[in-house]
Amino acid sequence: MAGKTRRKGAKSNAAAAARSPLAPARFAGLPEIAGLRLAAASAAIRNPGRSLGRKDVMLAELAPGTTVAGVFTRSQTASAPVDWCRDAVRGGKARALLVNAGNANAFTGAAGLAAVERTARAAAQAVGCRPGQVFIASTGVIGEKLPDQRIIRVLGGLGSRLRPGAWKPAAEAIMTTDTFPKGASRQAEIGGQRVTIAGIAKGSGMIAPDMATMLAFVFTDARLPAAVLKRCLVAANARSFNAISVDSDTSTSDTVLLFATAKGPRHRAVKSAGDAHLKDFRAKLGEVLTELAQQIVRDGEGASKFVTVNVRGAESARAARQIGLSIANSPLVKTAIAGCDPNWGRIVMAVGKSGEKADRDRLGIAIGGTEIARQGLAVPDYDETPVAAYMKGDEIDISVDVGVGRGRFTVWTCDLTHGYISINADYRS
Amino acid sequence: MAGKTRRKGAKSNAAAAARSPLAPARFAGLPEIAGLRLAAASAAIRNPGRSLGRKDVMLAELAPGTTVAGVFTRSQTASAPVDWCRDAVRGGKARALLVNAGNANAFTGAAGLAAVERTARAAAQAVGCRPGQVFIASTGVIGEKLPDQRIIRVLGGLGSRLRPGAWKPAAEAIMTTDTFPKGASRQAEIGGQRVTIAGIAKGSGMIAPDMATMLAFVFTDARLPAAVLKRCLVAANARSFNAISVDSDTSTSDTVLLFATAKGPRHRAVKSAGDAHLKDFRAKLGEVLTELAQQIVRDGEGASKFVTVNVRGAESARAARQIGLSIANSPLVKTAIAGCDPNWGRIVMAVGKSGEKADRDRLGIAIGGTEIARQGLAVPDYDETPVAAYMKGDEIDISVDVGVGRGRFTVWTCDLTHGYISINADYRS
Repeated sequence: MAGKTRRKGAKSNAAAAARSPLAPARFAGLPEIAGLRLAAASAAIRNPGRSLGRKDVMLAELAPGTTVAGVFTRSQTASAPVDWCRDAVRGGKARALLVNAGNANAFTGAAGLAAVERTARAAAQAVGCRPGQVFIASTGVIGEKLPDQRIIRVLGGLGSRLRPGAWKPAAEAIMTTDTFPKGASRQAEIGGQRVTIAGIAKGSGMIAPDMATMLAFVFTDARLPAAVLKRCLVAANARSFNAISVDSDTSTSDTVLLFATAKGPRHRAVKSAGDAHLKDFRAKLGEVLTELAQQIVRDGEGASKFVTVNVRGAESARAARQIGLSIANSPLVKTAIAGCDPNWGRIVMAVGKSGEKADRDRLGIAIGGTEIARQGLAVPDYDETPVAAYMKGDEIDISVDVGVGRGRFTVWTCDLTHGYISINADYRS
Repeated sequence: MAGKTRRKGAKSNAAAAARSPLAPARFAGLPEIAGLRLAAASAAIRNPGRSLGRKDVMLAELAPGTTVAGVFTRSQTASAPVDWCRDAVRGGKARALLVNAGNANAFTGAAGLAAVERTARAAAQAVGCRPGQVFIASTGVIGEKLPDQRIIRVLGGLGSRLRPGAWKPAAEAIMTTDTFPKGASRQAEIGGQRVTIAGIAKGSGMIAPDMATMLAFVFTDARLPAAVLKRCLVAANARSFNAISVDSDTSTSDTVLLFATAKGPRHRAVKSAGDAHLKDFRAKLGEVLTELAQQIVRDGEGASKFVTVNVRGAESARAARQIGLSIANSPLVKTAIAGCDPNWGRIVMAVGKSGEKADRDRLGIAIGGTEIARQGLAVPDYDETPVAAYMKGDEIDISVDVGVGRGRFTVWTCDLTHGYISINADYRS
């Protein structure tokens, strides 16, 4: 499999050369978070035997007192690091985060867990904490042993180079097929005090994650108990990372971690996620996660269009999400969008196949704000010309009303192009 | 939308020109079924305003006494003909089947149902029966009014040209993006008497049906009550049309109808589907449906490889099917196959995301009979070379043991290629 890793590496580097046309102009400048220091290095995990110098290991050191919450893949074949984090997060305390790209340490059996344990011990030593307060994530090829000694070898150096604002190297170190580093931040108020939220993410396999991973790490200097953090994260995650068609709830390694260092301005104590003083924090946390999630969509493999699918009139928000994902994941809808074809029959098909309740005879569809179908019928004298012109743009809005209730949900996705096939099928031939 | 229909027609004709590389050498010669007569004609449904002469209407006349059973799409946006058939099949008797291609009569509201009623009345007149004994299916574009007068206009002529062996024109008349007509037959014994089963099908949109339809019509000269027919059909359908990744249970128009004319050799009466004398009939019916389903896969849009996914060790057959479909529907697995890449990490990912129970540490994977992973790990000294060579062929076998139980299921699919993107995205630009 070493040959495979090299090919993957080659692919990953080739992809890095061609930045997604939907990428933001530049990496957002992220503010420092009190109590957080970052460093990145190359451990040659991606390309064993060839050191290309590309960063592939990231270490975050968190101040004593940092609380943590996480959400993880629901995959039945979760990776060893996911098993580790699920266990560690129960303690609610974090002192370090260690992430590598190039190898997912998934489908590696007992050896995989042992590798996680060794790297956690080494990271604990580097920052001076217990291994159970070290969080680990890995992304890359599946089924190969993690060369953990390579990671351990660079940990000492990482520990000595930690600094507060090293967001960009950290965001770059966790990339695989990503074509740009991803980051987002917001200021929020808790009881009149300003706190900061900032995070990074990776992921670019769009329909299902290639190299099997969507990762996001978000940090705040607020002072919040782990249980409160967990509820805030779950709610924000539901309308962000779980609202993009990356199959984010199902790959082997998907991980979203939220850390609160408690080192920002002293704000009033918050004991419950329902506390009214948390309202702004929760809203801003949602914005950070949504911005990161949308950046992942904008880096979708081969993506040429960013697509927003708004569903309303469903039985519930859950049903609206299922319908939205059914549309967003439909290869026929995605290829129609790639072809600038306002093929609303395919949207009807995708609504129908979602398995959720929809009233065929009350269904309404609009593209780019132009109503196409209403009450289960094409609108009289529907003129496709302006809609076809709109479809040539690179931001496409689809709105669907399924006519049975008040459930709403918005899903983001991208189109399915020859680029996707080339990245995933051709690179080897 | 007329312009759209023309474009669609153009696409459909272009596709018809390029026969799938996985197509059988020729249309199988199907035997006559006593009590069944067929005819096909062009009603210019596909290309209003331009009569290309391509057949797009098919009429089957069934002898008095014919029983019928059906299974239909579970789509929430089912077409008007599906609504009609669901109602008609409750009577258990059939005298005619009328099918058109070019227009699905879906998402057409009350006008759609009225069109079905008018064509059913006209067909009933042509064969001399009640409209409730006429079965209707339509496949083609969604959301446009069915030009039912065009169909009614050719019905008289069709009625006068009915003949027993007209299988090929009938199979051709129901094609949309299909690149070859599909048919299969078997002889079976019921209580020592030989009966015949023969059928035709259409469908080629692979991941989800383009023009939204998979149709199959199967006929036998056996003498079986509708209730018995229904149980035989449901069982055979579960391991054939519901075992291919055409999302066959979810498009707006999917329809499988089984007709028994009772005009073959007189065999002993069968009152229950569990009757031991039906064993051979049920097995052969399963073979006919499986052969038709596999022909649909072989006509998958852009398909270059026919893929068999065998799942065992699941909690139940149902769970094994879900896992099989998760693998078969994964764009990453499908593109890896297109690229001749034995990328088993993507198979692990697809097993994990299925939502079904799997034991990560007992998972086994084989491709083309070569064991790749065992007990949750790559086999020692795995040599990719012979597997990569095997992947260059056009029949690919993937076997997965998920290590938790005794459930088994086999799913058929095809790869995801540039051809698929070209057919579904490029034709308009």
